[in-house]
Amino acid sequence: MKIVMIGGGPGGLGAAGAAKGTDPKAETIVYTQFEDVAYSPCGIPFVHGKEIDSFDRLFLATKEQYMEQGIDVHYETTVNAIDRANKRINVAGEGDISYDKLILCSGWRYKELDIPGQDLDGIYRVKNIRSAMNWDKFLDNVKTAVVVECGPIAVEMVSAMVHRGIKTTLVDPNPWPMADVVDPDIIEPVRKDWEEAGVDMRWGERVTAFRGDKTVTHVETTFGDVQADIVILGTPKVPNNDLATEAGLQIGSTGGIVIDSKGQTSDPNIYAAGDCAEIVHGVTNLPLQGLTGSHAYAQGKVAGVNAAGGERIYQPVHVPWGMLAGEWMIGGFSFGETTATAVGMEYVCGKTTGITRARYYPGVRPITVKLLVDPKTRGLLGAQMVGGEGVKERADFLGVASRAGLTIDALATMENVYSPAIGALNEPIQIAAADAVMKLDGKV
Amino acid sequence: MKIVMIGGGPGGLGAAGAAKGTDPKAETIVYTQFEDVAYSPCGIPFVHGKEIDSFDRLFLATKEQYMEQGIDVHYETTVNAIDRANKRINVAGEGDISYDKLILCSGWRYKELDIPGQDLDGIYRVKNIRSAMNWDKFLDNVKTAVVVECGPIAVEMVSAMVHRGIKTTLVDPNPWPMADVVDPDIIEPVRKDWEEAGVDMRWGERVTAFRGDKTVTHVETTFGDVQADIVILGTPKVPNNDLATEAGLQIGSTGGIVIDSKGQTSDPNIYAAGDCAEIVHGVTNLPLQGLTGSHAYAQGKVAGVNAAGGERIYQPVHVPWGMLAGEWMIGGFSFGETTATAVGMEYVCGKTTGITRARYYPGVRPITVKLLVDPKTRGLLGAQMVGGEGVKERADFLGVASRAGLTIDALATMENVYSPAIGALNEPIQIAAADAVMKLDGKV
Repeated sequence: MKIVMIGGGPGGLGAAGAAKGTDPKAETIVYTQFEDVAYSPCGIPFVHGKEIDSFDRLFLATKEQYMEQGIDVHYETTVNAIDRANKRINVAGEGDISYDKLILCSGWRYKELDIPGQDLDGIYRVKNIRSAMNWDKFLDNVKTAVVVECGPIAVEMVSAMVHRGIKTTLVDPNPWPMADVVDPDIIEPVRKDWEEAGVDMRWGERVTAFRGDKTVTHVETTFGDVQADIVILGTPKVPNNDLATEAGLQIGSTGGIVIDSKGQTSDPNIYAAGDCAEIVHGVTNLPLQGLTGSHAYAQGKVAGVNAAGGERIYQPVHVPWGMLAGEWMIGGFSFGETTATAVGMEYVCGKTTGITRARYYPGVRPITVKLLVDPKTRGLLGAQMVGGEGVKERADFLGVASRAGLTIDALATMENVYSPAIGALNEPIQIAAADAVMKLDGKV
Repeated sequence: MKIVMIGGGPGGLGAAGAAKGTDPKAETIVYTQFEDVAYSPCGIPFVHGKEIDSFDRLFLATKEQYMEQGIDVHYETTVNAIDRANKRINVAGEGDISYDKLILCSGWRYKELDIPGQDLDGIYRVKNIRSAMNWDKFLDNVKTAVVVECGPIAVEMVSAMVHRGIKTTLVDPNPWPMADVVDPDIIEPVRKDWEEAGVDMRWGERVTAFRGDKTVTHVETTFGDVQADIVILGTPKVPNNDLATEAGLQIGSTGGIVIDSKGQTSDPNIYAAGDCAEIVHGVTNLPLQGLTGSHAYAQGKVAGVNAAGGERIYQPVHVPWGMLAGEWMIGGFSFGETTATAVGMEYVCGKTTGITRARYYPGVRPITVKLLVDPKTRGLLGAQMVGGEGVKERADFLGVASRAGLTIDALATMENVYSPAIGALNEPIQIAAADAVMKLDGKV
C-alpha cells in the first residue's frame, strides 16, 4: 500500500501520520513545494509583532523525526499533474510516481487583485516561514505599510505593524474588519484600539493599483495615493485546486474540492483535506472553504485513516474560531448577525457584557457574548464574542453545544464555576442565554 | 403577600430579588445576623493575601440600593424560632413577625472540632467581612499560623499566609488537600508549590487541642506541639439547620434541609436555598450539601420566584468548580477517581496534559484534563483539571456536557479554536476524550 500526500501542511502531515498509524506497513510519501514542514505558519504575525522572539520557535518537529516515523517527505518538489487512470502523479525532477491512494492537501493562497502592479516586489503575502524570515529583516527599514483587505491574518498583521511602530494604512472595500464573519459590535473595540494606535483605516475603499519601479513605493486607491514601503495582502483565502481541476475531480461552489465525510473525492482513490477542499457547515448544510490549521489537521487524519483502510468520519463543522485582535480576543462559532441576516435566516439574539473574574479581582476583563438562536428549534445558530480572556474556551464549548443540539434553555439554566480569581458569580454565556430565552418567550 | 428571608447571603438576596421581580407588590423582608449584605466573602482570602488591596472592594451594592429595590433588610437581627402553625417567626427585639412564605437561607458554618481550647481567641473561621478586617490587622503581627484541615477556603488561606510571609503548618487527617473532592494527581502541583514555599504539611495527622491563656499560642497534634500565633479552621462546611430542625422541617442525610426542585421544604409555606439545604447530584442522584455562592444565588432565585407565585425549577447539580490553589488553577465538575472509587462506581478515565496556547506563545501553560466516563452510557461522570489558565471555562463546559448527556465520543470528535495566542492546535479536552475512547474500545 503506497499512500501519497500532496502538501506538507497540517492536512498532509496529519494524513501521513494517521495513514502510518492505521497501516504501519504502508509506504507514506509527502510532497511539498516548500523547504520545511511541521512549523506553525500561524505564529508568523506574532514574530513580526515581536511577541515571539524568533522564527525558530515556530518549528514543531525536525526532519529527522518524520524519517523516524517512516514518513518520507520530499521537499521543494512540484507536482505537475495527476494521472488518475494510471494512478500516478508527475513530479518535477522525479518523473511519474505511482500511488494506491492519493491525498490532496494543497492548501490555499491569497486571492489576487486583478490590478496593475501586483507582481511588484514589496507585496507581502504572509504564509511561508522562510519568506517571512526575509520579510522580517526588511520590516526593520519599513516606515509605511498598506494593508489591503482585512482578513484574519491581516488583522494580526495590523497589530504587528503597530507593535513595530510602522505607520499603517488599511484599505478595505468592506465596512469593517473580517466583515464576512464578524459583527460590527464585536469588532468595534478592535477598531477603536487601532484608531488609538494611529492606524489610518479606510473602509469602503479600494486599492486600484500598486505603483513603483520594481519595488512598490505607493498604492493608488479610491481615496488617493498612499505611500507604502510594504504592502500586506489580506485578501480572502482561495483553494489551491489547480491539480484537482486539471485531473477532472469534482470542484464545489466554493472552489474547494468536493469530498464526502470520509474525505474521499469524486475519485475513490483520491482523498482531500484542509483548505483545498470544501466542508459542510453543520448549521446551514452549505459548503464552506478556508478554515483553520486545526480543521486541516483533523481532516487530514480522517483522510489518512480511510486511505489506509481504516474507517473514520469527519462531521460537518460548526467552526469555533478565535484570535487576538488589537488588545482583545474575538471569537465565536458558526456565524453572527451579519451573515444570518445576509442569508435571510430567522434568529433571536441574546446578548450581554459580563466579566471574566470577580469584579474586584486583578486582571478582570469584560467579555461580550452574543448568541444567535433558532426561534423554532431553540438551538444555537452561532455565537460571537469579544473579551479580555476566555474566548477560545467558550467558543469551543458553544461549538460543541450547537453540534449536540443543546437548546438555549439548557444554557440559560447552566451551572458555572464561581471563584473570584478565575470566574464571576454569573457566567456571561448563561446571562446571554437567559436574555435570548426572555425574547423567545415574548417577555421583552 | 409577605415573603420573609432568613439569611442575607447570595441565597437570601437572590430570593428577595427574584420574589420582588415576580410579584412587585410583594413585601420582601430579609433578616440577617450580620452588619452587611451584598459583599463577596469569597474574596476575603485574597485581601489577606494582598492580591486585592482593600476589603472595601468586596462590597457589591450599598444598603440604599436594596431599599430602592423595595427589599427591606434587617441587619444584626437574630431569628429565634419559626412558628409554622401560625406562620410567623420570632425575631429578637422585634417580636413575632408574620409571613405568607418563608425562605430559609441560613447558610453554613465550619464543623467544630470537639477538642479542648476551641473557644480560645486566635482561632480564625474565615467567613464574615467585618471580622476579616480585624483579623487582617492582626495578621500583620503574626509570625506562625496553623491551618487545621484543608478545605477549599483553607487552600486559599494557605496561599494567603505564604504571600504574607507567615510560617505556616498545615495539619490534616486526610492524605492531601480537599481529599474528598480532588484526586491526588491533580493536587500534586499545588502540594509542590507549598513545599517550595516552606509550608510544613502534615497529612494524616490531627490537632488534639488548642492551647494558650485566653489566646491560642500553640496547638497539640498527633505529631507534637506546634507554635501558633493564629489558627485557621478549614474544616468542612456544615449547614445552619438549627431553626429548621427545631421547627420540625425534614432534614436530609447530609444535614441539609430537604427541598424539592422548586426549593420547597416539607412545609409548603417554607422554602430553602443555598448551603442550609441539600441538593440532588445530577450524576449520582445522591443528596449534596455545601456548594458555592453561585449555586446559592441560583437556588435563591428559584425559591424566590416560586414563593412569589411564579414557577421555576432548579435542576440537579453537576457542580462545576474551580479555584486558585498555589500557583495553579484547579477545577472540574462532579467528582474524580477518588470519589468514584470510594462509592464503587465503574468508570474509565481519559487523561492528558496539554497546553493552553501554541507551544511557542508567551504565557502558554500546561493543563491536565482527566475525564471519568461511564463505560455503559459513555456519558461523563466527572472531570478534574489542573492548569495555568482556562480551567473555569472548561469546567463549565464539561458540567453542561454532562447534564446534557453528551457522550465521550462527541468530545473526542469536537472541533476547537486554534490560534497561537489563545489556543493550541489540539484541545486538551479532545485529547483526553480520545484517550478514554481508545480505552473504552479496548484499543489500549
